[in-house]
Amino acid sequence: MAEKEISQAVIGRLPRYFRYLGELKEQGIERISSQDLSDLMKVTASQIRQDFNNFGGFGQQGYGYNVEYLYDEIGKILGLGREHTLIIIGAGHLGQALSGYNNFFNRGFIFKGAFDLNPELYGKKIRNIEIRPIEEMEQFVRDNKIEIAVLAIPKDQAVKMAERLVNCGIKAIWNFAHVDLDVPENVQVENVHLSDSLMKLSYGIDRYEKSQVKTRK
Amino acid sequence: MAEKEISQAVIGRLPRYFRYLGELKEQGIERISSQDLSDLMKVTASQIRQDFNNFGGFGQQGYGYNVEYLYDEIGKILGLGREHTLIIIGAGHLGQALSGYNNFFNRGFIFKGAFDLNPELYGKKIRNIEIRPIEEMEQFVRDNKIEIAVLAIPKDQAVKMAERLVNCGIKAIWNFAHVDLDVPENVQVENVHLSDSLMKLSYGIDRYEKSQVKTRK
Repeated sequence: MAEKEISQAVIGRLPRYFRYLGELKEQGIERISSQDLSDLMKVTASQIRQDFNNFGGFGQQGYGYNVEYLYDEIGKILGLGREHTLIIIGAGHLGQALSGYNNFFNRGFIFKGAFDLNPELYGKKIRNIEIRPIEEMEQFVRDNKIEIAVLAIPKDQAVKMAERLVNCGIKAIWNFAHVDLDVPENVQVENVHLSDSLMKLSYGIDRYEKSQVKTRK
Repeated sequence: MAEKEISQAVIGRLPRYFRYLGELKEQGIERISSQDLSDLMKVTASQIRQDFNNFGGFGQQGYGYNVEYLYDEIGKILGLGREHTLIIIGAGHLGQALSGYNNFFNRGFIFKGAFDLNPELYGKKIRNIEIRPIEEMEQFVRDNKIEIAVLAIPKDQAVKMAERLVNCGIKAIWNFAHVDLDVPENVQVENVHLSDSLMKLSYGIDRYEKSQVKTRK
């Protein structure tokens, strides 16, 4: 499997396939044609076949895909075939919201620790996990072989925190701080820049309204 | 300005330009060359020039960009030139986290109302806004000319809720529910599917580890 050649665009689409296949599986559906999957997901059947061909195709022409097999295989490609340990930095509303996402924890992401800068929170629990002082973070990451840190802190603290996480051997940072992190290439970063997403929405509203004005002219 | 021809990829990059320019502006920097902006943002200077050419260029060759002008112009393109009213559906941790994002409210997104299904929350406040019963949502959207609804509710409620929002005239949905919404094309949707993002992270971890195993062989 020539994994290196798979584009980021294809990888970016895999979680959505995985989500739809999971729903089909829950509904007890055993097989699905690329056409039916196409109708469901509003992606062309040709796109689906091209995407899956990156991974060997997954199915037989004219016979459809085996839902459970496809779900499992895509899950494996996404690294969901084993458990990933995770800590949350920042135990405010966002950190607490993220800690409560069953979606994650059903899929092998194991919430192991929570850290905060605010002493008032120490000893309190989120999802049965004690909130610890940030000073204990490095030791905890090493002792518990933590792979993923969720950064749910303001941007002025995030760059420094990312450095500390890199130095104690974290493998991946899920970054909710509104700043781009500069980490070595062996550390994976996925940014969730929420206000970027909100701006795309306001762009869409304005663009639609302008198009309506033009139409009326 | 031929707005229709601007690709989603370019639009998707605008909020990041806007963020960096905002930081430069805060630092009191008045002009920046495309090369310096390129170094800062880790995007090629040619990409930056191409992106800006979609909107008329914004600057003079060899003279650099005027930071404040560029910031304002990109802000206008992003629809940030005026206020956008917003309600939050779902007053749990995620809804509360979102309501507290100063980033949004500094940029003209006005938090007007919060709604929940849980009667225990009615009358409580988030960010000084009273949490109301979901039954009052339609009337509130109409009376207050609400443009954007933030869906911070579980996926099994989200599809129905989106229908109700569309029926009462919402212009945009910022969707945090883990499901794709089917809305008419006059309604803008921006999805934040958090577990899709987490899966890309686990993919990255596994891919890096596999590449290391190969290197060692």
